[in-house]
Amino acid sequence: MSSRPAETPEPPYYVVVFASQRTEGDNGYAEAAERMAELVAQQPGFLGMDSARDATGFGITVAYFSDEESIKQWRVQPEHTETRGEGRASWYQHYAVHVAKVERAYRWDR
Amino acid sequence: MSSRPAETPEPPYYVVVFASQRTEGDNGYAEAAERMAELVAQQPGFLGMDSARDATGFGITVAYFSDEESIKQWRVQPEHTETRGEGRASWYQHYAVHVAKVERAYRWDR
Repeated sequence: MSSRPAETPEPPYYVVVFASQRTEGDNGYAEAAERMAELVAQQPGFLGMDSARDATGFGITVAYFSDEESIKQWRVQPEHTETRGEGRASWYQHYAVHVAKVERAYRWDR
Repeated sequence: MSSRPAETPEPPYYVVVFASQRTEGDNGYAEAAERMAELVAQQPGFLGMDSARDATGFGITVAYFSDEESIKQWRVQPEHTETRGEGRASWYQHYAVHVAKVERAYRWDR
């Protein structure tokens, strides 16, 4: 399988970087992650996302949004808020979040 | 193995998001990636990095820098510039880069 990184518009836009270490076992994670991907795609201002998790359970998801307000709305979305609680209870050993304004971007395709 | 995401200072700082799809085979990639990690750590203004690549060869690296000038200096670092050329010649099918200013960040540890 070969995947292309998400297409993004001309800057400025925002990126949320979510770096995390999973706990052992699935514990409902895969289903919830799929549901969150489905839900965030419905969030006004959502532009796309890229995600990778390695064999040790360390992963990075970057989600692109048109503006800060969209990120704030996504953060308070009730189902997302509840799922973040489950994440802390069960799925993550550590995580870090960085919210940043994209100033420039470029891409390359073979 | 359990890894913690990189520690970062209080914002503002910068993040470079590099999302990429690898080609098949190693072709010298692992050695070069290790060398680049060693080299960027010597770059003034470098704050840390997180990286994950999944079994399909899709990966995300996020590198944190104190300011834009450090990113520009890293971009023109001669060995890094040469290695980027090798990346386009051999290692990557697609990549995207987003350079962004971090406005807020938080972390959570079990």
